[in-house]
Amino acid sequence: MHVIIDLCVVPLGVGVSVSSQVAACQRVIQDSGLEHHMHAYGTNIEGPWEEVMAVVKRCHEVVHEMGAPRITTTIKLGTRTDRDQTMGDKVASVESKLSD
Amino acid sequence: MHVIIDLCVVPLGVGVSVSSQVAACQRVIQDSGLEHHMHAYGTNIEGPWEEVMAVVKRCHEVVHEMGAPRITTTIKLGTRTDRDQTMGDKVASVESKLSD
Amino acid sequence: MHVIIDLCVVPLGVGVSVSSQVAACQRVIQDSGLEHHMHAYGTNIEGPWEEVMAVVKRCHEVVHEMGAPRITTTIKLGTRTDRDQTMGDKVASVESKLSD
Amino acid sequence: MHVIIDLCVVPLGVGVSVSSQVAACQRVIQDSGLEHHMHAYGTNIEGPWEEVMAVVKRCHEVVHEMGAPRITTTIKLGTRTDRDQTMGDKVASVESKLSD
Repeated sequence: MHVIIDLCVVPLGVGVSVSSQVAACQRVIQDSGLEHHMHAYGTNIEGPWEEVMAVVKRCHEVVHEMGAPRITTTIKLGTRTDRDQTMGDKVASVESKLSD
Repeated sequence: MHVIIDLCVVPLGVGVSVSSQVAACQRVIQDSGLEHHMHAYGTNIEGPWEEVMAVVKRCHEVVHEMGAPRITTTIKLGTRTDRDQTMGDKVASVESKLSD
Repeated sequence: MHVIIDLCVVPLGVGVSVSSQVAACQRVIQDSGLEHHMHAYGTNIEGPWEEVMAVVKRCHEVVHEMGAPRITTTIKLGTRTDRDQTMGDKVASVESKLSD
Repeated sequence: MHVIIDLCVVPLGVGVSVSSQVAACQRVIQDSGLEHHMHAYGTNIEGPWEEVMAVVKRCHEVVHEMGAPRITTTIKLGTRTDRDQTMGDKVASVESKLSD
């Protein structure tokens, strides 16, 4: 099952800046080889369900290993069976409608 | 790794009522034996990471099998390493502060 | 426009425990007189759009006033024009399907 | 109060494709003049709280006017009082850590 997710990992108990932990998650995502796109409030990732979910779990493990005692994460997650659709397809579909 | 999640599964392409699909997810959750609590905008579930995530995946499989061509799901997901905490503990902690 | 939301306010930079800030938000919600239900990963609130959104903003103001330098909040928000539906209706609809 | 949000509006009861409604929301966002960035699972928007929230409400109004009887929206929403931070700052902060 192919999945497109939006992942936002928020460490608690590490002070007000969380960019070190977010960067560590980006490295996990990059190392996975999965297609991804970082934005200002999370990162889109796509691929096979198990691989994407393994990345999410690895992010929690890495951020805890960095010393964060608590993590709260938000995930949006989409699957479809009617047709293949990539992250790029989703954006292109909206942009095409916008340019009409 | 123990996890508490809030799960909200939304089928698309099945019309305006989604309660059949949500009920099917509730059955998946109940059958898992995991602690859970349904509210008006999702269901809290807690347990070991792999078991909870298997429930999420099974919900997507079941809702697609019911005929939904597309699903968009929102998950909030919390882990902590400083101490054990159940869903009941979280609510009790806030209610204790409220009654002070 | 009637709205049902699920609100989860997370203060950053206040340490690992956030129950004091969550309890303060609960007081804001209670004082609003709006229908609400707290669960382990947020609080359902329903009512007129402007009143509900004023509660969300007041929560941010109060939590900042308590000393939190940063807040990240997650909101699920539903509206419908086909019929009136309360939080209780949503839960009852699923429970009715479960008992069939 | 300056806010950065991530907005994902999902119409129900309009079939499996929702790109027309998402494009209509993009037009609302563009017309607002607020800084924004669309990605594959939502759109980042930043600006004064009231202006950003007016955009969210206008999106619901427009999508209902297009015929969607039901909408479920997910919003992530961040505020901070310790310093000014734009969407671009957030991404740059993580990318700077990544290039170290």
